[in-house]
This record gives sequence, C-alpha cells and structure tokens, in this order.
Amino acid sequence: MDIAALRNAHPEHWDMATAIRVLTLDAVAAANSGHSGMPMGMADVATVLFTKHMKFDAAAPNWIDRDRFILSAGHGSMLVYSLLHLTGYEQFPIEELKNFRQLGARTAGHPENFLAQGIETTTGPLGQGIANSVGFAMAEEMLRARYGKRVFDHHTYVIAGDGCLMEGVSQEAIGLAGRHQLSKLIVFWDNNSITIDGKVDLADRTDQVMRFKASGWHVQEIDGHDPEAIDAAITAAKGSKKPSMIACKTHIAIGSSAQDTSKGHGALTDPKLIEDTRQVYGWTAPAFEIPGEIKSKWEEAGRRGAEARFAWEERFSSVSERRQGEIHRIMAGEAPKKLSSVIRALKKQVSESAPKVATRKSSEMVLEVVNPIMPETVGGSADLTGSNNTKTGDLGVFDIDNRAGRFVHWGIREHGMAAAMNGMALHGGVRPYSGTFMCFTDYARPAMRLSALMKQPVVYVMTHDSIGLGEDGPTHQPVEHVAMLRATPNMLVFRPADTVETAEAWEIALTQQDTPSVLSLTRQNVATVRKEHKTKNMVAQGAYVLADAEGKRQAILMATGSEVEIAMAARDLLQAEGIGTRVVSMPCWELFEAQDDAVRRRVLPAGPVRVAVEAGVRMGWDRWLCGERGREAKAGFVGMDSFGASAPAEVLYEHFGITAEAVAAKVKSLL
Amino acid sequence: MDIAALRNAHPEHWDMATAIRVLTLDAVAAANSGHSGMPMGMADVATVLFTKHMKFDAAAPNWIDRDRFILSAGHGSMLVYSLLHLTGYEQFPIEELKNFRQLGARTAGHPENFLAQGIETTTGPLGQGIANSVGFAMAEEMLRARYGKRVFDHHTYVIAGDGCLMEGVSQEAIGLAGRHQLSKLIVFWDNNSITIDGKVDLADRTDQVMRFKASGWHVQEIDGHDPEAIDAAITAAKGSKKPSMIACKTHIAIGSSAQDTSKGHGALTDPKLIEDTRQVYGWTAPAFEIPGEIKSKWEEAGRRGAEARFAWEERFSSVSERRQGEIHRIMAGEAPKKLSSVIRALKKQVSESAPKVATRKSSEMVLEVVNPIMPETVGGSADLTGSNNTKTGDLGVFDIDNRAGRFVHWGIREHGMAAAMNGMALHGGVRPYSGTFMCFTDYARPAMRLSALMKQPVVYVMTHDSIGLGEDGPTHQPVEHVAMLRATPNMLVFRPADTVETAEAWEIALTQQDTPSVLSLTRQNVATVRKEHKTKNMVAQGAYVLADAEGKRQAILMATGSEVEIAMAARDLLQAEGIGTRVVSMPCWELFEAQDDAVRRRVLPAGPVRVAVEAGVRMGWDRWLCGERGREAKAGFVGMDSFGASAPAEVLYEHFGITAEAVAAKVKSLL
Repeated sequence: MDIAALRNAHPEHWDMATAIRVLTLDAVAAANSGHSGMPMGMADVATVLFTKHMKFDAAAPNWIDRDRFILSAGHGSMLVYSLLHLTGYEQFPIEELKNFRQLGARTAGHPENFLAQGIETTTGPLGQGIANSVGFAMAEEMLRARYGKRVFDHHTYVIAGDGCLMEGVSQEAIGLAGRHQLSKLIVFWDNNSITIDGKVDLADRTDQVMRFKASGWHVQEIDGHDPEAIDAAITAAKGSKKPSMIACKTHIAIGSSAQDTSKGHGALTDPKLIEDTRQVYGWTAPAFEIPGEIKSKWEEAGRRGAEARFAWEERFSSVSERRQGEIHRIMAGEAPKKLSSVIRALKKQVSESAPKVATRKSSEMVLEVVNPIMPETVGGSADLTGSNNTKTGDLGVFDIDNRAGRFVHWGIREHGMAAAMNGMALHGGVRPYSGTFMCFTDYARPAMRLSALMKQPVVYVMTHDSIGLGEDGPTHQPVEHVAMLRATPNMLVFRPADTVETAEAWEIALTQQDTPSVLSLTRQNVATVRKEHKTKNMVAQGAYVLADAEGKRQAILMATGSEVEIAMAARDLLQAEGIGTRVVSMPCWELFEAQDDAVRRRVLPAGPVRVAVEAGVRMGWDRWLCGERGREAKAGFVGMDSFGASAPAEVLYEHFGITAEAVAAKVKSLL
Repeated sequence: MDIAALRNAHPEHWDMATAIRVLTLDAVAAANSGHSGMPMGMADVATVLFTKHMKFDAAAPNWIDRDRFILSAGHGSMLVYSLLHLTGYEQFPIEELKNFRQLGARTAGHPENFLAQGIETTTGPLGQGIANSVGFAMAEEMLRARYGKRVFDHHTYVIAGDGCLMEGVSQEAIGLAGRHQLSKLIVFWDNNSITIDGKVDLADRTDQVMRFKASGWHVQEIDGHDPEAIDAAITAAKGSKKPSMIACKTHIAIGSSAQDTSKGHGALTDPKLIEDTRQVYGWTAPAFEIPGEIKSKWEEAGRRGAEARFAWEERFSSVSERRQGEIHRIMAGEAPKKLSSVIRALKKQVSESAPKVATRKSSEMVLEVVNPIMPETVGGSADLTGSNNTKTGDLGVFDIDNRAGRFVHWGIREHGMAAAMNGMALHGGVRPYSGTFMCFTDYARPAMRLSALMKQPVVYVMTHDSIGLGEDGPTHQPVEHVAMLRATPNMLVFRPADTVETAEAWEIALTQQDTPSVLSLTRQNVATVRKEHKTKNMVAQGAYVLADAEGKRQAILMATGSEVEIAMAARDLLQAEGIGTRVVSMPCWELFEAQDDAVRRRVLPAGPVRVAVEAGVRMGWDRWLCGERGREAKAGFVGMDSFGASAPAEVLYEHFGITAEAVAAKVKSLL
C-alpha cells in the first residue's frame, strides 16, 4: 500500500482518518486486547460519512431525526468510539478510550447501546447490525408516513463485514430491505477479504454484488480508501430508490505489517509494530493525543448538523401540540394513559362471558382493543399470520405504497424478524410485536437474547406453545423453550392461562421500557379460569392463588398456561376426596421472583405437598417445588421429559400423562 | 391448468405422479390435518427423480451407496411417505398412510428420520434439509476420496421450498456448497410462488436464480410439470461440476380448486374438493387404493436399483477385509477399540504433569491423540479455528482439491455448520465435531435441537464458555447457555474441570450412537484438579466426589468446569477453619441423573449445607441444591444473575463475586 500517495492525495482527509487509526492502535494496545484492523481499514469511509454526510449533532445525541449509524461489524468498536470522541460527544472524553475494555467504561469490547449515547445498537454477534438496520429503516418509513418529512426524514447507515454477510440472518435482512425498497438504508461492506481463519476465500466465494442485486439492491463498488469515490458513492446511494450496498475494497490493518492478514483482524499490540505503523502514517503525536488542528476539524464535523437540528426544531414546534405530545410519548416508549382502562374493560367482559378460546385468540382480542389506542404498535408474523393472530383489522399492511401500514409480513424469517424488531425498538417511536411458533424461538434466539441485553421492550408472540399443537409433531412442539427463555436474564416470560391473564400479560408487556416480553400462547382452546373480575392485574404479581383449598390445605398445585385448567380439574378430583387443594397460577416467574419474601410465602406457604404441572421440561421448577431456601416440601412434577410426538393434541396429553388424573395421583402418592 | 393436456402428453407418467397426489389427498383427509398442496405440486418432479434417476433399492433401504433424498420442505411429508409406499418399502404398507399423523405411526406430521427407513433426515423447521444436504454431500466426497468410487459414489437430492430459501440458514448452505463445488448435490426448488400468508411476493422478491449463481451454482429453470424437462434437467445437473439448483415452476395443489393459493398449502379436507380434484385427475380408484398396474410400475421403480446394488456388493467384496471392517464400523458409528486405551494413556500423563491450561487446549490435546486412530472424525470451526482448538496436525483441510481433508473451515456460519454436521452424521461414515464460542450456540440452536431429536452423535466444541472470556463483553459471554442446553432432551452437556475430565468427556462423546454432546470449554487456563490417575471414567458417573471432607462433613460444594478450581480453593479456606467440606465435580448432569438413587445419594448425601458454584445462571441448580424429592438441605448458589460485562476475566470473577472467598462466605452464612 502506498500510504504516502494516499496522504498526499488528500492530506486533510488523511489526517482526520488517521486520527481514528491511531486512537484504535493506542486503545487496543492499552487494553492489550481488541480488534485493530477493521477501524484502520474503514477509517476513510467513516471519515467521509461523518464529515460530509451523516446528519447528527454531537451536542444532541438523542435528536430524534438524526441519521443512525450502525457498526454491524461490532468487533471494530474502536471505530465508533473514536468517532464519538473525535466529534465531541460529551460521554466520550479521551479517558474513556484509555479505559477501552475495562470494567465500568463506556468503551466495552463491543459497542453496547445501553452504555452510552451515540451507540445505536449492540453488535458483536455478527449479522445483527445489518438485520437491525432493516427495522431502523422501516421505523423511519412508518413514522415519516405518519408524521411527515418535517419530523422524520433520516438515513440509516451500516458498516458490515464479511462475517455479517456470511451469517444467514444477513440474507433475511437483504431480502426484506430489497422487498420493501428501503431506500434510506445504506450499507457499506468492508470488503477486506480477511476473516479470523484467513482469507474469506477459504470459506466463501459468493459474488456479493450479484447477491445483493438479486434482492433488488442498488450496488456500487469502490476503493474504500479513496475519499472522493466514497463521497460520490454515498451521494449516489442517497439518490437511489432502492436500498444501497457500497462494496468498499479496503485493506485491513492498513499501513501496518499485519495489513491484509488475519493477524491484522485481531489485537495489534506489539509496540514496534505500532511505532512502525505510526511512522508509516507520518503520525508523530504521542499516544491518545490528537493534534489540535485535527481535533478541531473533527469537532467541527460534530457540530455540522447543529443547523439542521435547529431547523428541525423549528419545524417540530409548528407541529400541533397534540402530535408533539404523542411523538414525545412514543419516542420515550411510554404507554398511553388509556391502556389500563381498555385492558380492564376487556377483562371484565371476558370474565363474564368466559369464552373457551385458544390464548393466541385471546391475544388477538387484546390487540383488537390495544392497537386502536396505540399508534406506535407494529405487528407482524413470520408467515404465520393466521396462526399467530397478530393482525388486527385496523393495522394495514406495511408496503412500498403503504408506508403507514402497521403490519409486516416478515416472510419465513424468524431471525430477521426479531433482529428488525430490535432495530425498530432502538429507533424509537415504534413498539414492535410479532409472532411465530414457540418452537421457532430457536431461529430467533440470537436476536431475542439481544432484545434482553439491549433492554428493548420488544414483544414476542409465540403461539403453539406445547404438545398441544398436535399433529405437526416434535419438530414443532416446544418442550424446552419456555425454560430457555426463563433462563435468559432481563426477559419476561408470560404463559397466561386464559384471556384475562393474556390481557394482563399484554398490559405489562406494553408498559415495559427496558425489558422484552415473550407471550407463550396455546394453539388449542382453553377454558376461562378467571371468572371473577378483578381490577388488579394479578399477572403483575407473577403468581397468585387462583383457587384456595377448601378445608385443611394439604396440597398446592402450581401451573401455567394451558395446564392451569388441568390443575383446576385435578383440584376438583382431590377436593372430592377431601384433600384440600390450592391452585396457584404462575404466569410469570420473573415477576414472582421480584416480589417480597412475604408475598411469595403467602402464595406458596411451607407444609403442603407441591405438584407443578406444565407441558414442558422440569428444568427450573425445582426452585418452586422444593421451596425457597431449601425449605422442606414434598414435591412432584407432571410434564415432559422427552420430545413430543405427532398425534392429535388430546391423544398426546393422555400419552404423556399430563392430565388431571395424573396430577391428582401424583399428589396422593406424595401425601 | 390444463390437466387433460398434461395427462395426454405423458399418460404413464401422469398416472404414476397422480398416485402420489391422491395418496396425499386421502391421507390428509383421513388425518384431517397436514399439507396437501406441496406433494401435489411436486409429484411430477418426484416421479421422474424416483423412476429415472435416484439410485436406490427399496428392498435395501440402508445400502450405503444409495442416493440420498431429502425433503427440506418437510411439511410436504406425504410426498416422501407416498414414494416409500409406492416403491415398496417394507415399513410403509398402506396402513401407515392411513394412520398419517397418528400416535405410533411412522407417518408423522413431518418426516422423522428415527421413525423409519427411507427417511434420511428430520425436516419441518425450514431450511434445515437444504443445510443438512451440504453435510451429506461433503461426507460422500470425503468417503469417496478415502475409499474410492467403487464404494462411495452417489448423489444427494433435495426438494426445497420458498420457506427453505427465505430462512437465513439456506444462504449459509448455498455459500458452502458453492465454495466447495459439491457437484453431487442437486436441489429442486419448488417454485410455486405461495406461502402460508399468501403470495411469496408479499415478503420476498429475490431473484433466486441470480442468488444461487452468485454463489457458484449451476442453475436451470424448468416447468416442474413437464417430465421430459425434469428428466433433462436432472441429467444436466448430474453432468455439472458445480452444485445444481433446478428451479421448478409448479402449481401448488395442482388441479384442485385451491390450486395456486395459500389455502392449497394447507390441509385440503373438504370431501367435495377432494372428489372434484380426483375427477379432474381422471382418477377413479377408491381412497388409498392404487390400481394394480400403476402400483406395479412403481414397485418396478423401487427395484430398479437392485442391479446396481448387486454390482456394488460385488465391488465391495473385492475391498480388503480390513477396509471392509473399517467401513462397516464407521457406518455403524462404532468407536474403535483402541479409543479407551488412548484416552487412558493421556489421562495418566496429564494427571502426572498437571498442566495449567484452558480446557479448549485440553480438548485439542485429546483430539491430537484421537484423530489419528479415528479416520471417521471430521473437525471444523466457524471461523474460530485458533480459538476453538479443533484442528489437529494430521487432519488436512477439506477443499476442492483435497476431498480427503478432515477439517472444514465453515466460515462465519454457526447454523449452517451445525446443520451440515447433522447431515454428515446422518449420512454415516463420518463423526463430525466443530466449534464456535459457547455464546453462539444461539445461532446454531435450531440445528442443535435437531441433533438431539434426530439422535445424531454430533459433538459441539463450545469454547469461551463464561465471563472467563473477558474483554469481548456480554454479547460473547454465555450465562444462560449451559442451562438452555441442559434443558434440551437427549443432549449430553459436559463442562469438564481440567484435561482429565475433558479426555473423559470426549471418550463418552465419541462412543455415543444416539446422542449429541456439547463440550463447554474455557478460554482461560485452569488448574488440573484430577491429579491422581484413575482408570475409571469418572465423568461417566456425571458427578463424583473430587475431594471429601476432612473431619465432620458440614458442607458440600458442587461445581463444574472452571469453577471446580474455585470450589477446591473454597474447600481449603473452609477446612482451615475446621469446616469439613466435600467438593463434588458435576461435569455432566444428564449422566448423573441416569445413575441409581444409591449412587446419587452417596455423592450428595442429605444433611450438609450445599453450595453450588457455576459462572452461569442458577436455573436448574435447585434440582441439586434442595436435594432429590425435596429432602431438606440448606443451600446456596454462587454464579451469575445478569449478563456479563467487558473487562479482563479476573476482574469479572471478582466483580460478579464468583470467588473462593464468596463461596466460603456463603457456606458459613448457611451453617
């Protein structure tokens, strides 16, 4: 690489870009870990983007009409930290960079959205950023359609690497963006031909240009070190009516002895290598010091968007007060005040009418009353719309000619759907929920974990949540999935028993600001067990006494979802034999765990035999069966200890012994 | 659709194909559930394939050199059941078809490999079959390279639908097959333009032909109802040096009133619709009856491969006896006799030298002695070869010009890797193991579940298994993943403490025939805790006493993996204060659960305080903490209850309080 030629051709650009490179080298060396090569290679693209195109104001990181920048190749985190420092984000003084990858620093190994302003999403697991970006761009389209260009009119920029493009989820994202002609989405592919194992060619020879074109993208190929080419390509991309991919041929770890090698992908920490590289760059300032002139040019870039922001604020102030209030509310992720009364009215109605319906249908009943009062909800399904019951009458379908549509046909793309929902939630102004079969949480899992880690209140509507789905068989029958979700930190897992509990679960899910929710819903009909109307949201307690023992309390049955009905029937059998039996419905373990000891003890007092019934694996139930702090309790479990089978649902419940009779027998065997 | 024209053009073909169509209609009607449209639409392709090209002999379903047929669009299961019945597979009498989707039948809702011969893989979760097929084709290439064309020389045929191609994993499969020019892989795309939600166009407009070409495939487009075109396309595909995709334009639910609609995708059960369709087809035989002439033509097709099989048997008998024995052994999935002695020798050596190494390095040490004596092992990594330590010196890299290579650079494709490993294991003759970071089991999850459901002894080498990976931060730090894996039925989850336990875990994993294994391995160095050589494989007991209490037994510490060392240090602290403390290493819960009560009680006797320590979530530990059957035990847990953070490993262990001091303090607080 003829670095001198690059420098001479565009000296000012060179200096600014190289500030990113040396900060990266310095921070990685200080941490003695990290990834140097990518920020070094993509510094030119990032510099042109941030100094000439990105609409942002470092002084107002949360400006809602800013362009979004997503580093999908998250291991190159020093790229974004350098940019945030250089452009003058308050939260990124040089000390943060010196503390790269240290406990408590905002400069984590991979960018974490919850640690600092200016980091739009958490990346690192590859492919997530590009898939998030589809949600960002969709949210922008939807909000622009609803509130007009004067409020929402911005781009989403992404830097993706070879790893992002090899992950399958990228195909789901590419397909979605192409299908919906998300023209304000612009992806830079860091085409450096290197991965950890060696040359990309070792594992992939896909013609990425042809691949993106196949899905309807506008594609350009440029030298990723030529600032003029970069500038022109971004301008052209902005003018396209399709999503844009700019293939940037770059040299990873440019200018170092590790350039164009897999070594360059990782942490360059050898002092001599670093010194030599600085020399090649013609950079003489000490570590972590940026010459004043260069720093001020960067800070100027950081202020470049101020004018646009002022203009926007003026425009925004001309929006009606009601609309301003609504926009503030939805961007803050606050539920409308009306929500609780609407939920309460539905609860009252269904406890009286006591319908026998599948809880997926219950969920639809809730959405029918919620969607009209929450313009920010956006629903969808991974090609199971009729089964997931996520589409209500008034939503309209999001499409090229209907950007105001609030229902998304995601296609058979559970992973892309979940990642795009994360993007929508991160963008703000949209509260996404979508569905698939519970068993296919497997496909969505990497993005679902990120909802939790990123503290995004996405709602997953997972129907067909047990062997109760019947004939489709074990590939479609979750047995371990509810346990898996419960094992995940910061995730509310609801398994409601009937329409009342489903309404309560939805109310909680829709008022979350930092926590995703999963609704585990049945395919099969279940009885209404909450026939007495209570204003109070009982699901909010996590677990509660649904029916108490008559006479001496000898047994406590714990159950969730479709098995609450079974527990109630078992109680009837036991009470008929004079065995006083309490039934505890446990729709949300996480919320129950958050209760005071006293509440938990009131619901699950020591002494009686405890039997849990759930059409899933036992994993986790021992927490409740043996009593907290190991208090003695004779205990048993009725559920699954294997995969399911293909047969009608009733046959399977009988076959696997999940019946009222089996529960009653288990209790009696323990007494 | 002009059905009459189709029938008249190729009357014999029409009758044979229509036998599939009516059997499908009849079985779905009998079950009152299922998917009619796909088998109806793809009957022509299947008929040409099975009558003219597929090398198989219905009388010898397990013939090792048979062509493999994979129905990736598994919901169309009646296609494969019809074919197996019609061609005369013993396990598929008409009664099986009449019992479609009923308990105990081989004709499950989706094809289940473990239920019957002739079903090569379990499909239903979309995209899995096409991704399995990459493993099938790789296994064939590898075995052909090692044993010659006279033993292994067959094709892998796949039928994939739009759903398969929308799932991201398909891109990973397409990329891999293209990269490796797997020319004996032939994929039929059922291009029927319909999904459950409606037209494919609702969610996707990808030009699939261009997409496959971009990854180096040979692509043809044909009318999927024209037998001559199908025949010619298969012939051309067989002649290509690339993997082949044949885009078959078809009409879903052809000839019925639901043709070309999403209704046609599902269960057509209306008697009038069925009767009308049979009439359109010109089919007069009663339900489940195939006219004798048509059935005999199909049975002839089922016998068509007998001659080739006899010729193969003759060729095989000319192979040396030693080789024959080896081939029989590897196809049966049996470990070589030498394995246990090799493992024992390594155990002896490392208990003496007591190295302080990461268990991922321990795993490499095991593989270094195992791979030379097990020619069937095939290793790999999802672009983390140097980190997962899965590549040993003698393997060679699988490539176009080195088909005998036994290491696969999977690229950044964890999901495709896992699904391809399933394919290799299903093919037989190959025992696949591959690695990624434990956190990215998330990406591989759908295929990992299928390893368990399909009873395939795939080995997952999951390194960097806790916050011990340090600076990469919470996106890369598993906390819930070991719990998730333990929740999955039929999966052995090993978290070995040192090199000795790692060797024992590998020995168990490599002798499994029906169960996949996950090795949860550290990034960071750990001490050897098993310093006294024992011939016996202690990991096989699942949990065992590593160090017993001195004096009165007041506490039992339970730990796995890197935390066993911490438990041992905590024991030192407690013993120093006179608190008799036993340490139980629990490398594999599933194996411990399988022990007799007496064994479990010996290891975990009632009475002492129990504290578990594991750098993961508590989920599942209560099973062991409260004692079986709710026996009383004061108990505590030291581990994680949130996501991790970015910092050096030691700092994180301290920060999250997973230390010997914390464990000792917990014990004392409970005494």
